Amino acid sequence: MSLHPDRFFSGDAQSRSAAREIYESISGLPIISPHGHTDPEWFASNQPFSDAASLFLTPDHYVLRMLFSQGLSYEDLGVPRKDGTAVADGRSAWRRFAANYHLFLGTPSRTWIDHSLQWAFGISETLSTETADRIFDQINERLTEPDFLPRAILEKAKVETIATTEFALDPLQHHQSLKQQGLIGLVRTTYRPDDVTDPDNPGFLANLATLAETTNEDTRNWPGLIDAHRKRRALFREFGATATDHAAPTALTADLPEHEKQALLDRLHCGTISPEDAELFRAQMLTEMAMLSVEDGMVMQFHAGSRRNTDPVLMAQRGPNLGADIPVPVDPVRGLEPLLQKFGRSPDFHMIFFCLDESVLARELAPMAGYWPALKLGPPWWFHDSPRGIARYLDRVVETAGFFNLAGFNDDTRALLSIPARHDVWRRCVADFLAQMVTANTLGKPDALQIAAWLSYESAKVAYNIPA
Amino acid sequence: MSLHPDRFFSGDAQSRSAAREIYESISGLPIISPHGHTDPEWFASNQPFSDAASLFLTPDHYVLRMLFSQGLSYEDLGVPRKDGTAVADGRSAWRRFAANYHLFLGTPSRTWIDHSLQWAFGISETLSTETADRIFDQINERLTEPDFLPRAILEKAKVETIATTEFALDPLQHHQSLKQQGLIGLVRTTYRPDDVTDPDNPGFLANLATLAETTNEDTRNWPGLIDAHRKRRALFREFGATATDHAAPTALTADLPEHEKQALLDRLHCGTISPEDAELFRAQMLTEMAMLSVEDGMVMQFHAGSRRNTDPVLMAQRGPNLGADIPVPVDPVRGLEPLLQKFGRSPDFHMIFFCLDESVLARELAPMAGYWPALKLGPPWWFHDSPRGIARYLDRVVETAGFFNLAGFNDDTRALLSIPARHDVWRRCVADFLAQMVTANTLGKPDALQIAAWLSYESAKVAYNIPA
Amino acid sequence: MSLHPDRFFSGDAQSRSAAREIYESISGLPIISPHGHTDPEWFASNQPFSDAASLFLTPDHYVLRMLFSQGLSYEDLGVPRKDGTAVADGRSAWRRFAANYHLFLGTPSRTWIDHSLQWAFGISETLSTETADRIFDQINERLTEPDFLPRAILEKAKVETIATTEFALDPLQHHQSLKQQGLIGLVRTTYRPDDVTDPDNPGFLANLATLAETTNEDTRNWPGLIDAHRKRRALFREFGATATDHAAPTALTADLPEHEKQALLDRLHCGTISPEDAELFRAQMLTEMAMLSVEDGMVMQFHAGSRRNTDPVLMAQRGPNLGADIPVPVDPVRGLEPLLQKFGRSPDFHMIFFCLDESVLARELAPMAGYWPALKLGPPWWFHDSPRGIARYLDRVVETAGFFNLAGFNDDTRALLSIPARHDVWRRCVADFLAQMVTANTLGKPDALQIAAWLSYESAKVAYNIPA
Repeated sequence: MSLHPDRFFSGDAQSRSAAREIYESISGLPIISPHGHTDPEWFASNQPFSDAASLFLTPDHYVLRMLFSQGLSYEDLGVPRKDGTAVADGRSAWRRFAANYHLFLGTPSRTWIDHSLQWAFGISETLSTETADRIFDQINERLTEPDFLPRAILEKAKVETIATTEFALDPLQHHQSLKQQGLIGLVRTTYRPDDVTDPDNPGFLANLATLAETTNEDTRNWPGLIDAHRKRRALFREFGATATDHAAPTALTADLPEHEKQALLDRLHCGTISPEDAELFRAQMLTEMAMLSVEDGMVMQFHAGSRRNTDPVLMAQRGPNLGADIPVPVDPVRGLEPLLQKFGRSPDFHMIFFCLDESVLARELAPMAGYWPALKLGPPWWFHDSPRGIARYLDRVVETAGFFNLAGFNDDTRALLSIPARHDVWRRCVADFLAQMVTANTLGKPDALQIAAWLSYESAKVAYNIPA
Repeated sequence: MSLHPDRFFSGDAQSRSAAREIYESISGLPIISPHGHTDPEWFASNQPFSDAASLFLTPDHYVLRMLFSQGLSYEDLGVPRKDGTAVADGRSAWRRFAANYHLFLGTPSRTWIDHSLQWAFGISETLSTETADRIFDQINERLTEPDFLPRAILEKAKVETIATTEFALDPLQHHQSLKQQGLIGLVRTTYRPDDVTDPDNPGFLANLATLAETTNEDTRNWPGLIDAHRKRRALFREFGATATDHAAPTALTADLPEHEKQALLDRLHCGTISPEDAELFRAQMLTEMAMLSVEDGMVMQFHAGSRRNTDPVLMAQRGPNLGADIPVPVDPVRGLEPLLQKFGRSPDFHMIFFCLDESVLARELAPMAGYWPALKLGPPWWFHDSPRGIARYLDRVVETAGFFNLAGFNDDTRALLSIPARHDVWRRCVADFLAQMVTANTLGKPDALQIAAWLSYESAKVAYNIPA
Repeated sequence: MSLHPDRFFSGDAQSRSAAREIYESISGLPIISPHGHTDPEWFASNQPFSDAASLFLTPDHYVLRMLFSQGLSYEDLGVPRKDGTAVADGRSAWRRFAANYHLFLGTPSRTWIDHSLQWAFGISETLSTETADRIFDQINERLTEPDFLPRAILEKAKVETIATTEFALDPLQHHQSLKQQGLIGLVRTTYRPDDVTDPDNPGFLANLATLAETTNEDTRNWPGLIDAHRKRRALFREFGATATDHAAPTALTADLPEHEKQALLDRLHCGTISPEDAELFRAQMLTEMAMLSVEDGMVMQFHAGSRRNTDPVLMAQRGPNLGADIPVPVDPVRGLEPLLQKFGRSPDFHMIFFCLDESVLARELAPMAGYWPALKLGPPWWFHDSPRGIARYLDRVVETAGFFNLAGFNDDTRALLSIPARHDVWRRCVADFLAQMVTANTLGKPDALQIAAWLSYESAKVAYNIPA
């Protein structure tokens, strides 16, 4: 069906009218996309996407997992295997997707796909068995037109800046190409050193060795390891990076005395790595990264609390990030304590924390962000960057953290076309939230309009220290 | 007061009108009651209930606990003691209940009792000291009429199928009588083997011995123990069982190597059972039950996270299930991992999980149900099968699990007359939830109508594998 | 801006009209303020406040923390240092506060300050850089008028009774003065013995010794220690105390055999106190306090789950209670079990429990309060005594605990002028909650009006056993 102009606005006529007014004031603002997982090659080479399935289906683990949960196989959905065994082609995968499109009713996946079909391709028919082939062909025809090249999509979506995410050892060749084309600023990288900070990574020790070679530093020596990071961070900044990004299963940080750091590093190099040492190293490296952020001004993102690869069969056959990561509880008060007690008062330190454990929003994160100068609260993330997730987030954080300790929105997406859709959902939900306050006479309209612009555009720019 | 036709519909006139339309489309559907605790003897013998107190008060721990919390005693409420000491008779218990009926304002107990008084007996007066005797007499007069016999109530409520719950050692004599009367299908049993899977049960070892005798299997030997279950499950299926049911204080499952299973069983037979072994046995038996479900097709229900009998005085004087069970947090991601990694991808395995820890709904259960093919999410349960509980449940699960990984509703009740009332509340709350989406233009009306029927009727039938 | 008469009323016109009617029925009721931290000297000496900053800014850690989180320093906000180093004067602190008043949009701080400015001083201008000096001067001029003396403010706010909170060793000199003036009853003390029950308190052993001297009891001997409490509690009752108050980082209680109590007390006196012994002593003392409550009828308040002083720099420079306390999860089911199994059924015991872990409200606290006769559920506390916090609280507790196991509202404030503002927010939110039920036809209007009065006034009086 056609997208309704008032979608996501709840409540009575008065509230919806206020929501519409607020939304109209922000719907045309440029997009700041400060954290995500789009492929920098798209923007560097600016080549057409291959087909509808590769655009909407295979790269989106939200879509794949839901179809899998209802009995479809990753084979049938065309997701490549590590061993190269053939899988379904794009069209037949698309047909299966279309035939099961009702599974997505009420989910953010359907929201962004419906939005993209209409916004990008002018398609307002509902995806179904009957329309599957027609829509597949319509999309494929358009993909080679200049308007549908990756950079044209960024422009049409008014993306002012978009950050990709690269591991510490990434050669950054696409960003080099982007630099040669004068596109750094429109596109930025982000320093995500999990490849060399997480001992549970199977290639961890080899990666440390590569890091040593790449930077000409002795990474078996603690100061050398830190210097290696220092150099890579400097390099990433040359390609527009204003932020780093760190993932961990828990929120634990540590602040070890110097000699224990070296002893820990030594243990990691000697035989089997214990789970305790792996966690301690991750914890200590977070505090080291904070120290480097104080030094070089990069904003530190930390998202905690995902249990990765809970289905070992999927992992073995196809690899990570395909839908079997599940959130677990986190303990930010005690976990972040060592790091915050060391750097939380520093005016030169900026940290954005997010997680999927909503029970900590009102209880811990909003109180913490409402105290520590260094700490901003990241947006509702992953499963929760959805209308209801956004509503719960704002409900739980605003009263204690205020609006100005929030880091705005990030789309965290692997799907290019979902970017305008996701930001639109955020803006509509922000408008709805503020409109309810206006209707309940707890916020004036002029304040609501200013906060709407803050949450939709300015806050992310400030939080991520994006140059004007 | 009279039941309002629009009760439970929230929001503005537009939403309420949509809710009414959706509700009207589902209010007449038959009832699938796939999980509950009604007494099979009621349906087998079809004898009249004795009086109003035995219908509304003494069997309902929700009602008893609330009155106790405000200073009334179980004696005064007519709840029998183990030692046979006399307690209040039905009429005087009823008077106390009526005099304190204001305590139930805002609670689901009042909702279903008001509903039942009107639906079954045409009584729209409010229960109070003044009306207590009149209502008591009115009800008692009617109970002997044919329309108020248990099976007539099932028919009036349009119950298509109702499952009772029996322990593994239950003789199933009432279901045998039901079978002779051709009533299996209308009534079904459910295999709940906690009597022989929970070592914390005081009669556990004796029960294992009885299980051995009953099945002619050696239950001190692991394969024999599993065979004994295999036989009992087959017998339960003869009496209509399509599902098993399992309770545990935590969500822990285990997947031990064969020799450790036997060693564990041996330890249980030798002297005191440690809490660790008790938990490990429960955990391992869950995985064994999953294995048998793959084999015989029975749907496996698992509800975790209740701390039982927190008041030892109540337990000592009157026994379990009288109101002192309190929920605790559960950890389904790590707890279910061994079981799901073994059977979660099997097309022949079907598991329905529910718990009372709402903090895991959005964080863990919806993501898990949105991935594992075998896993469906059970309904808001126990304290949460209430208007607000249902609203929170749908709010937290739909965006990530979708509508089609939900197992619909079950009433889980011991009170026959609460069945139509509880299903009515679910249907009204579903209608309200969907109506809000229609009003916010995030769901089309035709889709809303289909999902309403799915959630009210079809989903339970599918999830519990009830024959058409 | 001017306070809107319909502020905090949500939803459609019909709901808001019902909310208005309910609110009007309770807005004029006297205030019961049974738990708070105002300074008894204010009421005893009845001297004018010094200036606007000392009234609104420096004593309110909610306000200070938010300004600190956005880069302002406690120096600049005029918060005194332990070492006596000079800090900003009232006017310049006020200017900084005013210049950053937008930070409080959407927060309860802004709600009460706006309310107080208008309610007490007739100021409806918004605080800002431009209005800062004018408002500062306006307030200061009025503070010396008789209408703005502390007791006049109590009278204007219709405070029927207000409880302050004093440690066990407090000399109670201001309450003695109040007694001489015949003001006990209007003002009451509360017995908060954390100074002698929490071994983590740095002065703990010295405090025990002082307690021994003060009461002429041997506090190194367990029965002597309990007798010392018995005497202090009796003294506090002479100054109007009807309740005790207890804080702890966890909800743990204990019920040790006699000889272990003495052994524990002996260990506390011998060298370093282990964290385990500190926790065990707090846990046991809670059960002892319950025993004394059964004996002397004082209502026992217990609030658990705050991690105190998470910023050691703030603590070192300025001391506690300035904004760096952060909530952590609590486990009331298992924590309170020893205490409740001992006294939870006693008709002479009355306990009010509250915490900041909202995830336990529906899961544990409402079920527990809906069972144990002794247990009442305290109000949404600290960060959560806010419109959204109140809405979440009522949503999560009412269906299971009912309205009559709730202890009403307490303001828990250090800021005198916030008292009428906070109670007004509670009453408006209660009215809104009940109005939604009336609109959804799940509560009759007459019942709604009675419950509104109960929650706004009667419940606190009953729960805290305040004489009529």
